[in-house]
Amino acid sequence: MKTLPLPLGFSAAGISAGIKKKKKKDMALIVSDVPAVSAAVFTTNQIKAAPVKWGIHVVEHDGARAIVMNSGNANACTGPQGYANTQAMAAHTARNLGVEPTGVFVCSTGTIGKPLPMDKIDAGIDALFKELSPKHGFDAVEAMMTTDLAPKSLSVDIEIDGKPVRITGLAKGSGMIEPNMATMLAFILTDANVEKHALQCALRSAADTSFNRISVDGDQSTNDSVIALANGMAGNEMLTPSSKDWNFFFQTLEKMLFELAMMIVKDGEGATRVVTVRVIGAGSNGEANEAARAVANSMLNKTAWAGTRPNWGRIMDAVGYSHAQVQENRVDITYDTLLAVRGGMAMDVPEEELVKIVSKDAFTIHINLNLGGGEAVVYTCNCTEDYVRINVE
Amino acid sequence: MKTLPLPLGFSAAGISAGIKKKKKKDMALIVSDVPAVSAAVFTTNQIKAAPVKWGIHVVEHDGARAIVMNSGNANACTGPQGYANTQAMAAHTARNLGVEPTGVFVCSTGTIGKPLPMDKIDAGIDALFKELSPKHGFDAVEAMMTTDLAPKSLSVDIEIDGKPVRITGLAKGSGMIEPNMATMLAFILTDANVEKHALQCALRSAADTSFNRISVDGDQSTNDSVIALANGMAGNEMLTPSSKDWNFFFQTLEKMLFELAMMIVKDGEGATRVVTVRVIGAGSNGEANEAARAVANSMLNKTAWAGTRPNWGRIMDAVGYSHAQVQENRVDITYDTLLAVRGGMAMDVPEEELVKIVSKDAFTIHINLNLGGGEAVVYTCNCTEDYVRINVE
Repeated sequence: MKTLPLPLGFSAAGISAGIKKKKKKDMALIVSDVPAVSAAVFTTNQIKAAPVKWGIHVVEHDGARAIVMNSGNANACTGPQGYANTQAMAAHTARNLGVEPTGVFVCSTGTIGKPLPMDKIDAGIDALFKELSPKHGFDAVEAMMTTDLAPKSLSVDIEIDGKPVRITGLAKGSGMIEPNMATMLAFILTDANVEKHALQCALRSAADTSFNRISVDGDQSTNDSVIALANGMAGNEMLTPSSKDWNFFFQTLEKMLFELAMMIVKDGEGATRVVTVRVIGAGSNGEANEAARAVANSMLNKTAWAGTRPNWGRIMDAVGYSHAQVQENRVDITYDTLLAVRGGMAMDVPEEELVKIVSKDAFTIHINLNLGGGEAVVYTCNCTEDYVRINVE
Repeated sequence: MKTLPLPLGFSAAGISAGIKKKKKKDMALIVSDVPAVSAAVFTTNQIKAAPVKWGIHVVEHDGARAIVMNSGNANACTGPQGYANTQAMAAHTARNLGVEPTGVFVCSTGTIGKPLPMDKIDAGIDALFKELSPKHGFDAVEAMMTTDLAPKSLSVDIEIDGKPVRITGLAKGSGMIEPNMATMLAFILTDANVEKHALQCALRSAADTSFNRISVDGDQSTNDSVIALANGMAGNEMLTPSSKDWNFFFQTLEKMLFELAMMIVKDGEGATRVVTVRVIGAGSNGEANEAARAVANSMLNKTAWAGTRPNWGRIMDAVGYSHAQVQENRVDITYDTLLAVRGGMAMDVPEEELVKIVSKDAFTIHINLNLGGGEAVVYTCNCTEDYVRINVE
């Protein structure tokens, strides 16, 4: 049986509450023994699910104790009753812990627009508390999965201020993935002692270079949430940006979020390869981002990659209709290290060399617009018939 | 054998020049016996194929005589040599007609980035002239096809200023289709006598409500061209916006472009149903357009429709991440005439009634944002596994 080591003072559980069909695990609970400093990043979709609205409220409070989550139902577009249901989930969890509801984050993921089955949820919360254990982290990861094929988690042990510190990440996400968040949830747990504002800035910044750079299908969900809890039980002196070990802590956090984001893009619905689209030489970073996203989200590119066809013409096309300024005769395109297009025209490289690159599990497309200093990178995946099959079903 | 009636003074040809594999027709020629007034609308992609750059130049000249086109090769991203090849196609055609090259439009559609096989093109042009006939309009339509499953053309006879007038449309397009033009070509031929500026305005306006409102996959091509030739041989008094019959002529043109656009969206790669996405009540027409496009281009919506699942949650989601301003509790969604969502929440309508609607060959999704007077409509199609299969291959 797989396990996931949790930081000191954290316990978890994952159970089947009967929300999903087929008795799969569909509820998870994460509890910190002591009040934790919290930080969070949420979807920028204007239509926010009830638990996201609640989380925006919770993160303003001190002393978070728990995250309760369900899969199989997004509790989005469910109106005032949906919000009341989220509050009820928080309140029920909080009662079992003897704390205020504002100490409990709630996450939901799954179908939009259906009322939460509150009888199952309530029974599920009680069942979760019975299963709660420092050894059940992996059960929580499994309960987070929806169309995910692989569970997504990792844990690292570092030393901060001479004390052993653990950071553990749990994530889910596969479809409806787009830069600026996705149908994804990620929970970052640590026993480090971190100042709240510093944790929020670090989480935001790390999300910007990880979860906000991945794209599966260009759809951005109503439920995306990245929540960090730091309970301080490692006993280190409070980390702030002026601490000696701050950079090390931040880089570890950044690396963890990046690894989790890569797990999500690798597990993109129906995907078989990861493609890094890196744009340089744009008029600005914003324009570079527009160009990279146009290429990464183009169905014609994603299907070409599925067919192991370089088809750089589709890249030129996408760059051309993006909102980035482009001059055809300045565009260079390099596959990994092979320059395929220079000044907007094909270089004399053997097609089979390019095919070899786009047949790999992972490759990078470098696009130089040769207009300025703007840069951006987006991580995406190919699109196979399986993506459509999964989303048709 | 199918035929396509051409207007007075027009002849056409379509042949196989060996550019496409499998000896399919891949070159077409349309000739007017007398100089015609021309108008054109081209792709807004910043990366424009050589024939588009040439066409922008040609339309500035008076007295167009011909359109020569090839499929199987887009002549895009081919640099100065590509442009020289387009000019050579125009010059060769012009020589055969005894006119200046600026009397000849050129169109190419197919793969990007490969040099045109000029030996085949040159032999093809001579072969086209041998086949040229008022009876060979349908051959030209067939030669325009790439991944199209169905040929796309129609012809209408009307009376203008007491004279019989014919308007004939020939079009191609299936993938890489997105509002603001697409990998599509359309030629509108008429024997009406029309003032040049009026024809240009009419064509632009009619394209805006037809070709610029369709979307198959959100990709916008480098080669899109709509070219109109009016040779005046019907002998009517010159049509201008102040003519008695102007509105009738314009409406006929508009209807023709709309019909051709609908043929393209119906023949979307792998598509089995046409979906009209109509947004009203937006803050502005521009915002309505953003919302409609987000819904129409969302892979999650297109695959849901392929699975005959209403899944209005995915519509809410797309509207929410669009650039249109949205208030969740104001959004109404109606499937054909069935109100499914009111104020952002599910109405109590039986799921099977909605399934019945999204199972039809064509249905309309009305989205009322209830914020202002902005309106827009986009015509799109569902996305099946076949779309991916076609583009992977």
